[in-house]
Amino acid sequence: MTGPRHAAGDATPAGIHNDGQQLAERVVRSMLASDALSRWLGIAVVEIAPRRSTCRMTVRDEMVNGFGVAHGGIVFALADSAFAFACNTHGTVTVAVDNTITYPAAIHPGDVLTAEAGEEARSNRLGYYRVVVTNQHGAVVALFKGTAYRTQRPHFPDEGLDA
Amino acid sequence: MTGPRHAAGDATPAGIHNDGQQLAERVVRSMLASDALSRWLGIAVVEIAPRRSTCRMTVRDEMVNGFGVAHGGIVFALADSAFAFACNTHGTVTVAVDNTITYPAAIHPGDVLTAEAGEEARSNRLGYYRVVVTNQHGAVVALFKGTAYRTQRPHFPDEGLDA
Amino acid sequence: MTGPRHAAGDATPAGIHNDGQQLAERVVRSMLASDALSRWLGIAVVEIAPRRSTCRMTVRDEMVNGFGVAHGGIVFALADSAFAFACNTHGTVTVAVDNTITYPAAIHPGDVLTAEAGEEARSNRLGYYRVVVTNQHGAVVALFKGTAYRTQRPHFPDEGLDA
Amino acid sequence: MTGPRHAAGDATPAGIHNDGQQLAERVVRSMLASDALSRWLGIAVVEIAPRRSTCRMTVRDEMVNGFGVAHGGIVFALADSAFAFACNTHGTVTVAVDNTITYPAAIHPGDVLTAEAGEEARSNRLGYYRVVVTNQHGAVVALFKGTAYRTQRPHFPDEGLDA
Repeated sequence: MTGPRHAAGDATPAGIHNDGQQLAERVVRSMLASDALSRWLGIAVVEIAPRRSTCRMTVRDEMVNGFGVAHGGIVFALADSAFAFACNTHGTVTVAVDNTITYPAAIHPGDVLTAEAGEEARSNRLGYYRVVVTNQHGAVVALFKGTAYRTQRPHFPDEGLDA
Repeated sequence: MTGPRHAAGDATPAGIHNDGQQLAERVVRSMLASDALSRWLGIAVVEIAPRRSTCRMTVRDEMVNGFGVAHGGIVFALADSAFAFACNTHGTVTVAVDNTITYPAAIHPGDVLTAEAGEEARSNRLGYYRVVVTNQHGAVVALFKGTAYRTQRPHFPDEGLDA
Repeated sequence: MTGPRHAAGDATPAGIHNDGQQLAERVVRSMLASDALSRWLGIAVVEIAPRRSTCRMTVRDEMVNGFGVAHGGIVFALADSAFAFACNTHGTVTVAVDNTITYPAAIHPGDVLTAEAGEEARSNRLGYYRVVVTNQHGAVVALFKGTAYRTQRPHFPDEGLDA
Repeated sequence: MTGPRHAAGDATPAGIHNDGQQLAERVVRSMLASDALSRWLGIAVVEIAPRRSTCRMTVRDEMVNGFGVAHGGIVFALADSAFAFACNTHGTVTVAVDNTITYPAAIHPGDVLTAEAGEEARSNRLGYYRVVVTNQHGAVVALFKGTAYRTQRPHFPDEGLDA
């Protein structure tokens, strides 16, 4: 992770743990260490907070499709990673169930994409997330909806939630 | 392209063109020549026919996510490529509008994935496609729905449809 | 229910229960008895089998939208009912999580719609269904994808599965 | 329509037309006059603005499904109507292409549902909308994504856009 800033409103007095924030950051560091594809994509996690994440990447020439624009799988993978980080911040392994993506604008090599993921609603075992992807001009290039299922497996089973 | 077999029922007497089949193959060859991401994924197009395609790839270690299983973007990209080829076979540039994917089973490095794409319905400017992805055991690992928009730009503007 | 025919291949000798078929029919009868909206829509269940259903309705004038064609919610409700019946046939209360619908052709008052629902895949707690809706000419008018979550509540808790 | 309030920020000096606002209201009045299903549902349009709408309804006993909760088609129809109004406010006939809905919480007879629809992005021929449905307690009960296609037919062909 590249030095995430704490979300606004998270200032805490010295010595008091922000458990939700610490757990979120720890989970995402752990996931990123194994996430070979996110590293190949060049994804940087620029912000993490409970149930939210912001990720950024630059599109390379090797990422184009048959029409010379970014392959749909590239922006999907970026949005999916942002979603995966956001929905795992609470400490239990959570996996994608059903994802939808639309593409309002084409994406080209050299574009810098920012994906902002956040929870919209939650039920007993499911989380409902939305990811908005913009380019370096602030134009919306993709809209992603992710539904996630929370398993009962903790990310850090032996250590408790705040180690 | 890796020597696609003609679809069953397409046997034509010598000297008579199967225009739809020839155009389909020509379009996909042209798309693949530019499709850097599909080549990085190692996608082989094993069959092409008008409005249908079958694509295959093997999952590599560099394609995993934070949980050590294939990143959701990998099987999405495979299904999206199969969809893109299938919906462009008729000769007019066609682009994805709205895609949905579900993940009935996890995918692991070493798995061989086969994506079969076909048209389910068509309206004036839109095509509706379904892609079923199975692994080497025949288990369904992903179900993809793609809606595509047909532009008015032909793939081969200067040559006509059957060159 | 309107006298469903047994699915092909379900012929059983006299005296031998087709438990899956009997349970499926019993569950759907029970659901229909409470399903006021399906009755208002005039939905007839023409066939039930484990994990499959076929439902039919006729579009009435009171079902149109602002453009005088059938409101999108009408064919969605038909497809959703067919999906709900199909995914509950196994005896445990199952609810919709995430549904997608596309509309290849317009639907008009007087049209007779047939929705065929079937399971495409299943995982531990989730079922993945597809519903194809055709009109009286056999044209595809809607394509529906439904993801369902299986709770642990049986439909008939006191009686066991085969009463 | 039930006396929509102008959107915040739309105050205009006396005598100057807010053409976008007037057109939006005129289109929705015209659509509602024909929209028999929205009237059966009891939908009230509480606010209209260019590319946005807020609609409200109360769930009745005749709207339940086989489990005694609101049928999925009911909240889908409400969200779909809000989407249809919002995406037609600009004066050209616009139709739904591809819709997705999730259901974070159950809906019961007596619940008052509010659907807020707004545009998230737009491309040449397509509009991308999001609808959030809440109940009388402010809980999110449904999340809807709608992709719409703008035809070239104006709503009021003979009169121009501001009559």
